[in-house]
Amino acid sequence: MGRWKPDARGRLEQAAMELYTERGFEQTTVDEIAKRAGLTERTFFRHYADKREVLFGGSSALESLFADTLAGLPSAVTPMAAVATTLEAVAAEFRERHAFARQRQAVVSANTELRERELAKLASLSTAVADGLRRRGVKEPAACLAAEAGIAVFKVSFERWTASSGRRDLSTYIKETLAELKALTAGT
Amino acid sequence: MGRWKPDARGRLEQAAMELYTERGFEQTTVDEIAKRAGLTERTFFRHYADKREVLFGGSSALESLFADTLAGLPSAVTPMAAVATTLEAVAAEFRERHAFARQRQAVVSANTELRERELAKLASLSTAVADGLRRRGVKEPAACLAAEAGIAVFKVSFERWTASSGRRDLSTYIKETLAELKALTAGT
Repeated sequence: MGRWKPDARGRLEQAAMELYTERGFEQTTVDEIAKRAGLTERTFFRHYADKREVLFGGSSALESLFADTLAGLPSAVTPMAAVATTLEAVAAEFRERHAFARQRQAVVSANTELRERELAKLASLSTAVADGLRRRGVKEPAACLAAEAGIAVFKVSFERWTASSGRRDLSTYIKETLAELKALTAGT
Repeated sequence: MGRWKPDARGRLEQAAMELYTERGFEQTTVDEIAKRAGLTERTFFRHYADKREVLFGGSSALESLFADTLAGLPSAVTPMAAVATTLEAVAAEFRERHAFARQRQAVVSANTELRERELAKLASLSTAVADGLRRRGVKEPAACLAAEAGIAVFKVSFERWTASSGRRDLSTYIKETLAELKALTAGT
């Protein structure tokens, strides 16, 4: 085993993604993930609560990143510009994660329960963004609507990026999709 | 019992909504719904597959209405204008349904499983709208994005309308929310 081994968490993630892709999420057990990673079940549970958390474990960090970025912007920034800047900050987190994101998207898409979980996570993100905008003094319905529109842009951009070769980064897709939304709504 | 009795389906719906509101969705049985409506369980199952369908039974009709309206519009209509017209057509269906929609929203909001079900239904509506737009010749990512933005507008409008006294109709909220989205995206 001469090749470089990433840390335990990284090895578990990699093993899990391989198995979910090869056999499907349902058919994979925690024991198999640990074995493939050359680790024990106990080590798995030190890093993840269950096998679903390998796919969704990053979502609370993402929610905090949205909230913190919104809170740190000058008060003069308009609601949609604040959402755009926040999406860029989030995109930066995914810079080295195209292979993982692509594989994850395929696993989630293939399973109804995981797709519903993903929708629930996106809905909490939207709530977090709306909360952040209200704390910036944005009134309703602008806060909820800017948040929903922002998450729609994020969802479409993320799907385009994961379907791509990864040569262009997520932030490029976000910029394009935001511009597209502006053009679409201007035409009504 | 001198008062006017609506049809069996209407009576079942009314009884179900009363019980879901009084006791919660989980705690209500089909037997209790049928009894409250003065009907049998057998009659309930002639109208609804289960107690959840009282809340979500209208969603496939809604999906068809979105698809048919999009298909019937002149080809010169821009993507967002097509989505706007479709939302207005859907709003017309809710004209006499404010009390039901308001009660339903409260029941769905109070239950995690129902909230997730609602998100899944909104996601299928978005897919139906994107399909309809692609059939009109709209390219990607515009089709998916206009669909997601349209559903975001629908969701925010619907929540505002159900939270209101119902004096103003849903289509007024949709017009306002669409205008708000245009103003928000113009400011970026």
